[in-house]
Amino acid sequence: MKLPIVTSWLAVCVLQTCSGDSHQSGIKPKMLERIKKEVTGYRDVAKSIIDLAVYGSAQNRSYERLALFVDTIGNRISGSDNLKNAIKYMYSALQEDRLLNVSLEPVKVPHWVRGEESAVMLQPRKKNLAILGLGGSVGTPVEGITAEVIVVSSFAELQKRAEEAKGKIVVYNQPFVSYGETVQYRSRGASEGAKVGAVASLIRSIASFSINSPHTGWQDYQSGVPKIPTACITVEDAELMARMASRGIKIVIQLTMGAVQHPDADSFNTVAEIVGSKYPEQVVIVSGHLDSWDVGQGAMDDGGGAFISWEALSLINDLGLRPKRTIRLVLWTGEEQGGVGASQYYERHKKDIGNMDLVMEADIGTFMPLGIQFSGTPQARAIMSEVMQLLAPINVTKLYDYAEGTDISFWMEAGVPGASIIDEISTYFWFHHSEGDTMTVQNPIWMNLCAAVWTVVAYVVADLEEMLPR
Amino acid sequence: MKLPIVTSWLAVCVLQTCSGDSHQSGIKPKMLERIKKEVTGYRDVAKSIIDLAVYGSAQNRSYERLALFVDTIGNRISGSDNLKNAIKYMYSALQEDRLLNVSLEPVKVPHWVRGEESAVMLQPRKKNLAILGLGGSVGTPVEGITAEVIVVSSFAELQKRAEEAKGKIVVYNQPFVSYGETVQYRSRGASEGAKVGAVASLIRSIASFSINSPHTGWQDYQSGVPKIPTACITVEDAELMARMASRGIKIVIQLTMGAVQHPDADSFNTVAEIVGSKYPEQVVIVSGHLDSWDVGQGAMDDGGGAFISWEALSLINDLGLRPKRTIRLVLWTGEEQGGVGASQYYERHKKDIGNMDLVMEADIGTFMPLGIQFSGTPQARAIMSEVMQLLAPINVTKLYDYAEGTDISFWMEAGVPGASIIDEISTYFWFHHSEGDTMTVQNPIWMNLCAAVWTVVAYVVADLEEMLPR
Repeated sequence: MKLPIVTSWLAVCVLQTCSGDSHQSGIKPKMLERIKKEVTGYRDVAKSIIDLAVYGSAQNRSYERLALFVDTIGNRISGSDNLKNAIKYMYSALQEDRLLNVSLEPVKVPHWVRGEESAVMLQPRKKNLAILGLGGSVGTPVEGITAEVIVVSSFAELQKRAEEAKGKIVVYNQPFVSYGETVQYRSRGASEGAKVGAVASLIRSIASFSINSPHTGWQDYQSGVPKIPTACITVEDAELMARMASRGIKIVIQLTMGAVQHPDADSFNTVAEIVGSKYPEQVVIVSGHLDSWDVGQGAMDDGGGAFISWEALSLINDLGLRPKRTIRLVLWTGEEQGGVGASQYYERHKKDIGNMDLVMEADIGTFMPLGIQFSGTPQARAIMSEVMQLLAPINVTKLYDYAEGTDISFWMEAGVPGASIIDEISTYFWFHHSEGDTMTVQNPIWMNLCAAVWTVVAYVVADLEEMLPR
Repeated sequence: MKLPIVTSWLAVCVLQTCSGDSHQSGIKPKMLERIKKEVTGYRDVAKSIIDLAVYGSAQNRSYERLALFVDTIGNRISGSDNLKNAIKYMYSALQEDRLLNVSLEPVKVPHWVRGEESAVMLQPRKKNLAILGLGGSVGTPVEGITAEVIVVSSFAELQKRAEEAKGKIVVYNQPFVSYGETVQYRSRGASEGAKVGAVASLIRSIASFSINSPHTGWQDYQSGVPKIPTACITVEDAELMARMASRGIKIVIQLTMGAVQHPDADSFNTVAEIVGSKYPEQVVIVSGHLDSWDVGQGAMDDGGGAFISWEALSLINDLGLRPKRTIRLVLWTGEEQGGVGASQYYERHKKDIGNMDLVMEADIGTFMPLGIQFSGTPQARAIMSEVMQLLAPINVTKLYDYAEGTDISFWMEAGVPGASIIDEISTYFWFHHSEGDTMTVQNPIWMNLCAAVWTVVAYVVADLEEMLPR
């Protein structure tokens, strides 16, 4: 995921008890009764899906498939050979899984290559700093940039001390409040530094916990502002330099980054379908993104989301189910650079928006599932609320507000209902965009449960007599 | 700390409700009454110590001193310039703190230097592996060792598959059970591998949690067994290779280690005293070790322990207290190589064992304190149990069995009562011997509380009319 607002939202939601109570929906009592009856009719099929995914022969399948995939391919940054290999791998795997209309839809994605990078504190004593350059950053000259450091804890402090910043490396030691709030230091840190004459920026990783672990991610240069090299440092080193600076100690760093931005590269959104039996032109999208950052394995972000989405189609096929509408798996590319593949997909397919029933994306982990986040009208919410009751056997019946997902945002902004899975993300930002995003954080039992939730929602919505109201 | 057994012990203790109930001590009721009365007389002075350390002008002092020390010096492996600088720094700081008999007692310590090191998985695909060579390991040839991997999950499996191991790099993917139990893979892994013809060993870090973080530590070559290079890899990479091997995939690694064992180096135990007013020849030792591994800052292991020990003497001086017996601060050197400095200290001072009242060491973190671990006779335990009641104002009154500490073990084995601080160590092995051992894991409030516990125990035992019975 790139820029979620889920953590700040979750904090709000815990306080506000977000709900989808159907009696508040404005839906007519008679229609509600009919919908309740129709949805209740899926109780057995929902139970079959749950049984197969959680206790049956498909148990642990999404985990095992994901492990084989990420162990074989590795991480998958846009423009890389790994991502090309990943797409080829999935193209074959989806065909072998008997899915229909398996296709690759061409898109262009940014092609940024990290290169060799290092940061060494030269004064007051020599110390290597663990860094990860930020996506899209320019590199340094080959000999690096050696400059004195100014440490600030906020953009406001940088403004106040603007005169001191000229010619220096800005170190941001902002506290972690929430990902949604704090990530602005990663995305804007370089340009805000450049505006006051800084020569590079080093940003405390956007992480709620650290074992000296740097975290990467995208950043945005503002137009008309000089582009300066920018990287994340660890929480520990940011705090170290803040303490040193508070003692009046002069800090000098040599930063070397071999980062290069190449011309946009060819890539593909990977698509496969279960074709609808009655309204094949109407579509429910289930999705995750196949690209990742160039560290760790991209197992959590977003291997897990992509593979429970694939699992949904596999489970439906295993049970011989055939929904009335088409269920389309989309494995997005270029998500980490801002939903690049999904944006182009939307442009190509928006003419069919009238047939887009529901867009679903899983991109905030596949830990213990808590429920579904949903964006749509009160009427649609009332229906989704009923659908969630089908998940009572695994006690994941909660419907929250505000579906989240960079890739589905284009459709949701145009009025299409959207759904995302929400799970127990308390450790998500410990691993996010770091070398720690590996299979070790994934848990087969949680993935089974996520897959069950995802599949029941996708199948039932795709099979209801009517599309979700807008 | 080097080889604690505290975690396995703690598990036992929780079940067994270790206690120091004085009615089980075999101590005569009349004597017990007298001791209770004597110890109760320290209630006000204990309260003064607590107030000063936790709420008063000394609040956060041990934390601030530690931050300044580790930020200035960095980590401090035996034989390094950093350790020499650390000892010089403390020699001055203790004198400036008005302590008496500040002295450096010369000892010889091992001098192992890590050098450049790397491990690259070459097959089935290229991937850098995060490693930390183990203390005392030999290096590889300059071009490294390139060999196929055998992955095992235990020494038993290695024995069974001994024929396969010849010429290979052994990867140990043992599960983490407890530090005390699992650390044998780090300490014995190389020699056990060499016995079956392995050319190097890579051991899953002895850590209960990981963000792709390798952990170093000491290891022991067995005599008569060829010395092969040995390093720790991350939990994540060990699991990755175990999964690959289980799929029958051939793994090849190139391991390069520039490790060199130099001749033993000159070092010093750093000593300072508050001289006893009535029995100056009788001594209570409070201690921690000044050396650390060559990663992170050594703030937790054992900066915290060393600095609450120093704080004990400072607090006693601040309050104008003068115990009957001498309180001697010892900041050990060479602990991480097996209590090397402490062993030589014991040899030099064991002639005075009759005057050694109590040896105290803090070397399992300075997180939220839980109580004191104590080794001694039932009679001594009964007295210590009363002393702990003086800590009721901060609710840290528990006395546990089995004091722990490599450096004080020499005295305890010879019958001297020993005490160690025990704290909330659930995250200790997340950071232990890794780049994550920094000031970021330290908490000033917890250090205040630890210092209060440490000081009350040291002062009261040093001031009682009689030495602890043996």
